[in-house]
Amino acid sequence: MRDVAIIGVGHTKFGKSDKSNMELFAEAGQEAIEDANIDRKKIEALFMGSVLPMFEDGQMMPAVYSTSELGLGSIPSTRFEGACASATVAIRDAYMWVASGQYDVVMAGGAERAMIMGTPFATRTFMMGGHAATEGPAGLTFPGAFAMAAVLYSRFYEIPLQKLREKMAHVAIKNHKHGALNPLAQWYKKYGDLTVEKVLSSPVIADPLTLLDCCPFSDGGAALVMCAGDVARKYTDEPVYVLGTGQGTGGALARLEDFTKPPSRIYSAKMAFKKAGLTPKDIDILELHDCFTPAELIALEAMGFFGEGEAADATVDGQTEIGGKIPTNMSGGLIGRGHPIGATGASQAYMIVQQMKGAAPKGNQLDSVPEIGMVDTLGGDFGTLCHLILGRTKR
Amino acid sequence: MRDVAIIGVGHTKFGKSDKSNMELFAEAGQEAIEDANIDRKKIEALFMGSVLPMFEDGQMMPAVYSTSELGLGSIPSTRFEGACASATVAIRDAYMWVASGQYDVVMAGGAERAMIMGTPFATRTFMMGGHAATEGPAGLTFPGAFAMAAVLYSRFYEIPLQKLREKMAHVAIKNHKHGALNPLAQWYKKYGDLTVEKVLSSPVIADPLTLLDCCPFSDGGAALVMCAGDVARKYTDEPVYVLGTGQGTGGALARLEDFTKPPSRIYSAKMAFKKAGLTPKDIDILELHDCFTPAELIALEAMGFFGEGEAADATVDGQTEIGGKIPTNMSGGLIGRGHPIGATGASQAYMIVQQMKGAAPKGNQLDSVPEIGMVDTLGGDFGTLCHLILGRTKR
Repeated sequence: MRDVAIIGVGHTKFGKSDKSNMELFAEAGQEAIEDANIDRKKIEALFMGSVLPMFEDGQMMPAVYSTSELGLGSIPSTRFEGACASATVAIRDAYMWVASGQYDVVMAGGAERAMIMGTPFATRTFMMGGHAATEGPAGLTFPGAFAMAAVLYSRFYEIPLQKLREKMAHVAIKNHKHGALNPLAQWYKKYGDLTVEKVLSSPVIADPLTLLDCCPFSDGGAALVMCAGDVARKYTDEPVYVLGTGQGTGGALARLEDFTKPPSRIYSAKMAFKKAGLTPKDIDILELHDCFTPAELIALEAMGFFGEGEAADATVDGQTEIGGKIPTNMSGGLIGRGHPIGATGASQAYMIVQQMKGAAPKGNQLDSVPEIGMVDTLGGDFGTLCHLILGRTKR
Repeated sequence: MRDVAIIGVGHTKFGKSDKSNMELFAEAGQEAIEDANIDRKKIEALFMGSVLPMFEDGQMMPAVYSTSELGLGSIPSTRFEGACASATVAIRDAYMWVASGQYDVVMAGGAERAMIMGTPFATRTFMMGGHAATEGPAGLTFPGAFAMAAVLYSRFYEIPLQKLREKMAHVAIKNHKHGALNPLAQWYKKYGDLTVEKVLSSPVIADPLTLLDCCPFSDGGAALVMCAGDVARKYTDEPVYVLGTGQGTGGALARLEDFTKPPSRIYSAKMAFKKAGLTPKDIDILELHDCFTPAELIALEAMGFFGEGEAADATVDGQTEIGGKIPTNMSGGLIGRGHPIGATGASQAYMIVQQMKGAAPKGNQLDSVPEIGMVDTLGGDFGTLCHLILGRTKR
């Protein structure tokens, strides 16, 4: 298997947009082409995540019409669907096609324009990412599922729920602080000065989660140009290499023994670490799937960055901030940056690449440029997990 | 790149079913596991096509819940969407992951339960496979698009439309004849004795196409177990090898110069032939995407089996029948076998494999077992094209 590098990245502003999924992807893709300084004719295939284009645009095959939007000719283009992890799955697949030697240059990423649906309809369509036969009919929306996770976490680790709420609020404070500094974020300049009090007193969405514990519905696109590692320096002085990838699958929540320790995430993260020959200690920066504040705690533990029940205190202690053990979601995460579901994984990769180029916004950029970063993306309620480990140096 | 073999196949009865997409896929997948005589623990990833599971089951990520339905654990599972070509795209991707050496054994296929939607709603959701911005608002459903193709074909090749209708009827007669002999087909024992008269006098769907020129909406699933070529004979005496694959992309019909010669299909077929080092002359049997009778003519020509404007007469002449130049859709095709869109590509591959094992129904089985077969699957109105070339002998 060959090394594979990311040589160009593009990212729309997240938030409300009037563009279609194809236009959002094309905007990000065009920027990635220009960033890579590459002739678009060199792109041999397109890999796109998008989850609800049929509901948003009345459009199947958004990958196909993104390809024509970008003027990429007849090249193979495929849509990947793994709910909110769709773009990460698309990037992982793109990686394999290049690593195998089949293609030299490809584009991968995703787009979503969820906001056109409005909150009630978006909530119902998103929930199709759970197990439809047992969770939908029970009224279990995602805020409900992660509220349950918070309660379970509180019980397992004997943290009184009110105490846990205060600890979880620090996830929101941190991620909103960084989102407020990120011009691409949906909540840019918006919630940079949250306090525990503010988070706890915002409207209740699903007890114990308040509005500020939750990521928003968002529109946006993000794209990467990837190529064979050995030619990456032809295009850029700052290639970022894919060191390892992982993917795992879950089932109905009802069958899960303990959903604060999702087997799909443990499986996927282990695969990525193994492929990269690395451990959590080697990771300098992390973009993880903080759809809700307890989701960040669960992710940090399942990936092995903290012991079970330790992520809440570590967050309060600043261990997930700049200067801490593992700076997490320095882009704002889903909570601060926004969550256009089909684009999120590509956005996470974009943010890691910017950090590695020293191009992250002031206040978000690590003091020294990170050598190794990791992307964690969750689809549904642990149905799909996908991980990428990225590095400034080849394996 | 390693050789890759199909070592087990499964296929549900096509037609109306009360099963979900996941249950349909699991039924086919379980049969494929038993056919391969393999321990399911050896399966390392799942690749699934399914197009409208959100409308049919209220379910995103059918690949995930098919994986748990089949008891396959936490292995990576992904849904691929390329409209009606989804399963072929999934199989092509599965091929690459095994060929690259990343996985040794995988499952690929697809499922669809379109009939639950009913004809009017299914027609509207299917149409999202066209270009939503320009084709949906114009009322251009797929029967309309292929009716236009028939009219264009008539004009380009100066075949009076009534004459062309009679020639196209021979596609329906042939495919229904074989579908009527195939116990897995939706129209098993149904339309085995059609005549030109009967086809022409059936209800008009989109002038000049009648009901018998059109494939039906269908429910069904089909799955393959695929493994590294060098270990295939551990599991079966009759492995079928993937010799080449191709995929191509189209755009809005309005931008297409001549849609009787779709560039996406020409591009994809050429890629598959090139990868396999073969030409149309080498193909012994063909399963192609006859969603409507003119679609079969267009496909035969775009893939290079007949010259431009020659496929209609060749069909009347028996050149696409057993004993002819290229026996086509001996399973009944989409017209006779049915078209559960997310499953169709896997069903086509299944039918080729059965031919290679000499296990096709009497009257459909070629006189001598075919050495090399080809699958052609179309998504939307030429948005996605995907091809597989399969052989009884390694490259």
